[in-house]
Amino acid sequence: MSRSISLAVIPGDGIGPEVVAQGLKVLSAALPQDVKLETEEYDLGARRWHATGETLPDEELERLKGHDAILLGAIGDPSVPSGVLERGMLLKLRFAFDHFVNLRPSKLFPNTASPLAGDPDIDFVVVREGTEGPYVGNGGSIRTGTPHEIANEVSVNTAHGVERVVRDAYARAQARPRKKLTLVHKNNVLVHAGHLWKNIFDRVGQEFPEVTTDYLHVDAATIFMVTDPARFDVIVTDNLFGDILTDLAAAVSGGIGLAASGNINPTRAFPSMFEPVHGSAPDIAGQGKADPTATVLSVALLLRHLGHEPEAARIEEAVSADLAERGTSTRTTDEIGDALAVRVAG
Amino acid sequence: MSRSISLAVIPGDGIGPEVVAQGLKVLSAALPQDVKLETEEYDLGARRWHATGETLPDEELERLKGHDAILLGAIGDPSVPSGVLERGMLLKLRFAFDHFVNLRPSKLFPNTASPLAGDPDIDFVVVREGTEGPYVGNGGSIRTGTPHEIANEVSVNTAHGVERVVRDAYARAQARPRKKLTLVHKNNVLVHAGHLWKNIFDRVGQEFPEVTTDYLHVDAATIFMVTDPARFDVIVTDNLFGDILTDLAAAVSGGIGLAASGNINPTRAFPSMFEPVHGSAPDIAGQGKADPTATVLSVALLLRHLGHEPEAARIEEAVSADLAERGTSTRTTDEIGDALAVRVAG
Ligand SMILES: CC(C)[C@H](C(=O)O)[C@@H](O)C(=O)O
Ligand SMILES: CC(C)[C@H](C(=O)O)[C@@H](O)C(=O)O
Repeated sequence: MSRSISLAVIPGDGIGPEVVAQGLKVLSAALPQDVKLETEEYDLGARRWHATGETLPDEELERLKGHDAILLGAIGDPSVPSGVLERGMLLKLRFAFDHFVNLRPSKLFPNTASPLAGDPDIDFVVVREGTEGPYVGNGGSIRTGTPHEIANEVSVNTAHGVERVVRDAYARAQARPRKKLTLVHKNNVLVHAGHLWKNIFDRVGQEFPEVTTDYLHVDAATIFMVTDPARFDVIVTDNLFGDILTDLAAAVSGGIGLAASGNINPTRAFPSMFEPVHGSAPDIAGQGKADPTATVLSVALLLRHLGHEPEAARIEEAVSADLAERGTSTRTTDEIGDALAVRVAG
Repeated sequence: MSRSISLAVIPGDGIGPEVVAQGLKVLSAALPQDVKLETEEYDLGARRWHATGETLPDEELERLKGHDAILLGAIGDPSVPSGVLERGMLLKLRFAFDHFVNLRPSKLFPNTASPLAGDPDIDFVVVREGTEGPYVGNGGSIRTGTPHEIANEVSVNTAHGVERVVRDAYARAQARPRKKLTLVHKNNVLVHAGHLWKNIFDRVGQEFPEVTTDYLHVDAATIFMVTDPARFDVIVTDNLFGDILTDLAAAVSGGIGLAASGNINPTRAFPSMFEPVHGSAPDIAGQGKADPTATVLSVALLLRHLGHEPEAARIEEAVSADLAERGTSTRTTDEIGDALAVRVAG
């Protein structure tokens, strides 16, 4: 537990700045008086790219390394070609800082409607690998733009990369009451990557005899996500499957407005980054309509990562109580942030 | 429209033989008296592999070519290592017969419960590419089984392969009342493959000015699948995304027990293959518990492909009426098949 926090803040595009402002408000309210919070803002995203053509200059990447953690709002705008900011900034950060654990909890909070009938019991966490798979950028095309174009994408999986995230997932499962870990892959088709994952999953499992294990193909996992989400406790999966499953998980557990995430380097060699799962939603930006709750819950993950467990838990309880007691009137971004800050300080 | 049908039948494993028997029963009932149906059974699947070590010998592949179409029940058993039958038989057939259109309709039938609240209006079809993407088998591993293992999987995408399936999807969208086509990919991360898909999607779209188009990242598509499935009319997507989305689509539209599919070669250079989306379900095999409806609906797709549109429509109407009027008592596989055959003949 640190007595001071140096936080890099990347508000980003669209609703990013609005939700980050609320996240910081709640963070300040949650921190004990004697913990010093220093923030430094980084101007990255679509605006910056339009102005300078830069996505994430090396000099800024270097400076970011000096912080304890990073809070990111959202990156992206339709005016920027698809992939430029994603590959040039978001993924660049995840790779440069070796964020191999992409942590995404899903919980159906009280008084929150699921699109699933009967509002099932949902409380699981996805541990998504963050530095390998088809995200590595080892693709290319030849004869581009011609009728003979071939475009390849390579999914790279290493024993090193798989083992560390699988072990992290086992440890998280071990620490939860149900102690259940499900591996999701597609090892009947992607046999080489799939068998690597499955073999390591089985081997590391021997170190965690109390954890019950399960394997599902990714297609079957999406079925259970809508027919029986209560069966999941901890899920570990590759970068792409994790991307898909966590959006689906967010949708069934009350919507992307509540989904938090952490891009974590458990070794602490580099700062970890926390961000809501949702995007920049330019259509509602600047109108006070964005729900900052996912960002606030990401702040809780950030605090937990930095060793401030009581404060993290207090934020999560505040969100839970706030959702349970909210009325039917629509609240602005600011009002939700204020309500949460009051509860947390309270 | 053919006056005779030579059909290859692959009952396969688990519940495969049971559901195929009902599919054939309904097929016979649906065909006009003057259409001659000849069937030849192929013993392929887990049993065969255990007995002989063979998955799909070349000689049988050759013989299969001589038929007008193939009806497949289900392949697979936990006793066979993952990937052996999938790669050695199912995918081998799809690749050898160039089944580039993997057609998977989703419809919420009357009196059928969706796991989604409010039983939304669901009536769309996924056109999944069937011969490329990460399914090509261009993967491998080095230092296998050591702490330094690297396992790669290559997704191969060609202009030729993408254009033909995209054009097929546009034609299907054009023929439907809503005339809407959604491309699903992940072109912000898989930029090379993604841009190939998007460029061809946009270019071919110029030939279909009446079709409204839309693009979604695969993660966002799973969200809409549970929050607003009515927005979909025709979806075109790559092999892996299509695999994932169609299982999810089956789940939200009443379950995998109702999901039909066709592995189609529209050029008719090779026989097309029709199969339920579900697997061999060894846990309920031989107990008369399997729902043969997905197989019966696959028979409808088969008939439509062979030019027997009225018979195909009659089967689909029979299924719809059967589901609408079924009581609350559980019916056996046989009883459902009988009920459908009577309606179709009727
Ligand atoms: C924006 C995109 C690169 C990103 C991803 O695919 O990882 C997003 O979808 C996410 O899940 O954080
Ligand atoms: C069994 C497997 C190879 C297959 C696939 O992934 O295509 C199945 O999931 C399907 O969707 O037909």
